Amino acid sequence: MSDISSVGIVVPQTAHFNEPLALKSGAVLPAYDLVYETYGTLNADKSNAVLICHALSGTHHVAGKYSENDKYPGWWDNMIGPGKPLDTNRFFVIGVNNLGGCHGSTGPSSINPGTGKLWGSTFPIVTVEDWVQAQSRLADQLGIKTFAAIVGGSLGGMQALQWTLTFPDRVRNALVIAAAPNLTAQNMAFNEVARQAIITDPEFHGGDYYEHGVVPRRGLRIARMLGHITYLSDDAMGDKFGRKLRSGEIKYSFDVEFEMESYLRYQGDKFAESFDANTYLRMTRALDYFDPAADCNGDLSTALAKAKADFLVISFTSDWRFSPARSREIVKALLDNERSVAYAEITAAHGHDAFLMPDQHYHDIVRAYLENIA
Amino acid sequence: MSDISSVGIVVPQTAHFNEPLALKSGAVLPAYDLVYETYGTLNADKSNAVLICHALSGTHHVAGKYSENDKYPGWWDNMIGPGKPLDTNRFFVIGVNNLGGCHGSTGPSSINPGTGKLWGSTFPIVTVEDWVQAQSRLADQLGIKTFAAIVGGSLGGMQALQWTLTFPDRVRNALVIAAAPNLTAQNMAFNEVARQAIITDPEFHGGDYYEHGVVPRRGLRIARMLGHITYLSDDAMGDKFGRKLRSGEIKYSFDVEFEMESYLRYQGDKFAESFDANTYLRMTRALDYFDPAADCNGDLSTALAKAKADFLVISFTSDWRFSPARSREIVKALLDNERSVAYAEITAAHGHDAFLMPDQHYHDIVRAYLENIA
Repeated sequence: MSDISSVGIVVPQTAHFNEPLALKSGAVLPAYDLVYETYGTLNADKSNAVLICHALSGTHHVAGKYSENDKYPGWWDNMIGPGKPLDTNRFFVIGVNNLGGCHGSTGPSSINPGTGKLWGSTFPIVTVEDWVQAQSRLADQLGIKTFAAIVGGSLGGMQALQWTLTFPDRVRNALVIAAAPNLTAQNMAFNEVARQAIITDPEFHGGDYYEHGVVPRRGLRIARMLGHITYLSDDAMGDKFGRKLRSGEIKYSFDVEFEMESYLRYQGDKFAESFDANTYLRMTRALDYFDPAADCNGDLSTALAKAKADFLVISFTSDWRFSPARSREIVKALLDNERSVAYAEITAAHGHDAFLMPDQHYHDIVRAYLENIA
Repeated sequence: MSDISSVGIVVPQTAHFNEPLALKSGAVLPAYDLVYETYGTLNADKSNAVLICHALSGTHHVAGKYSENDKYPGWWDNMIGPGKPLDTNRFFVIGVNNLGGCHGSTGPSSINPGTGKLWGSTFPIVTVEDWVQAQSRLADQLGIKTFAAIVGGSLGGMQALQWTLTFPDRVRNALVIAAAPNLTAQNMAFNEVARQAIITDPEFHGGDYYEHGVVPRRGLRIARMLGHITYLSDDAMGDKFGRKLRSGEIKYSFDVEFEMESYLRYQGDKFAESFDANTYLRMTRALDYFDPAADCNGDLSTALAKAKADFLVISFTSDWRFSPARSREIVKALLDNERSVAYAEITAAHGHDAFLMPDQHYHDIVRAYLENIA
């Protein structure tokens, strides 16, 4: 039985790039692959393409399933599909795994063609700007000169914003969701604790754990548990778990006592089995470094003067990681430049994770915005 | 040169207790020591005693110095001393290290008299209620029937509150500062991540690391780094560190890039050298388990009906760990029972740590309250 609002069975594709990519750090990536998926049909004048940029642990698998019985569709399947807010009857949607990732695009667990060995610790640090460069080459290869929209939540929203600065003429609309113009000290502090948990794991081996046949599972698990705290609001955790005991009574031990502990351990364990630690380190550094205003003495309005796109900026009331105030900084800087900006602050209980949830009001706003773009 | 507002050079004392202590968990501690300090003079009718209860990583060394050249006075030296808000010219102040601690009182790193070996993993889990019981025996030994006041911040505030429930006739005033009637799911989640960092450290050895001549330093370091994020407000971290780079330029590495990272690593390293991991686990569990309303179907007003003390409750606006809303829950429950309650919500930037800071308004309120008690 097929779901008519699903893009259906999807197959990832791989684009290979032989031209070296000069990274912001000064390093040069000699050649690389990007794995991507597409949904919908590119129209004749190639004007209906929408790029989806993923967040920290996201992938190119944004919508659809890999088989009929696949239990887990793409991570934004509730947003993207025929008749959905991002309607694939109308748009040609691209999901791409970022450079440095661990889901098919070239990253630390890939072979360095220059040495024939795994990149490991030698894989360079990549930035939001580098990702935008790499994504633009994928667009070139697909013959897409201008995107109808570039869309992202969290770190993905930062990429959507960066696109409007790096390639102002290639983005007609940017949807910047649950994002921020840079990280606060507290945001960076959480990243640092997560990284230190990984780096000090004895099985990290300076980032070359592949050679040792081990994985810094403990550190990655701690990083993910911590991440989950920042993705959920205090209220959402309270509603979901409160102080509920696993077994109904206190056991006076360090085993799981509270339901919330069980949830965190499960999330941590699952992630530690499936995600690459070196990728995690690089994704958090990309977050830390993103700061378009840095080159303009911290003046975001000056930094965003280059943008020509129209914008939809969305934040969520209970998001304490990237609070509505941070989105409003982006909105203000865009308005200072007389950009066309729609801004919505969604009342939502789920914290930062709200951008992934099928909230009716949120989805209606995305749908209405996209219905109105040329 | 002596500071006339300091209690001066202090010497810790040790009280030994031979009568077994039945703990809330069902375990029995056969005998134990409590290390404590006193400042000021106990008056003839022993009516001027004030007990200070410490927070997670606190100690009995609340005020004064150990030598003339001691650079670090007790942790609440700005609050306690001759002429200070808690005036030792008037009050006899007691600081005590809690059971399970690692600063002299019996804890996991002490010898179990029953086996002649270190307690290690076999040291029982202790609760706020257990601490209050143990503290009451110290009061008995010192001949103190009733405390003029019991004072604590954070986990210490929980002990002050518990005293009014366990021994309603032995506390005339309770100063409950930057505390909460229980932990939220988010609070407990941070504790769980910290504990998991320690427990999964390969050098933890199930809690018996002493026998192996090692310390789970990595885990303890991560736990402390994480703790510091929750002690400071986002704004305080922003004011103190912002996005300041250590060397003035980005190096594209996982070494210290931002000042905040340097601060967190320093705090983590220092703590990992000086604190006991088994104690840390137990202190966080005591926090998790504290929930006086649990036996009253979650009704805090019913739970606090036993209290007879007068109360001063203080919270700090930027404290997101134990927010003012949590203090107001305590105030409301006390008012429901027609207790005498003064409540102050201090505008302060320092987050949870504000209770340790010499804020004038805060100190004036404590001073005024204590000047007015019999």
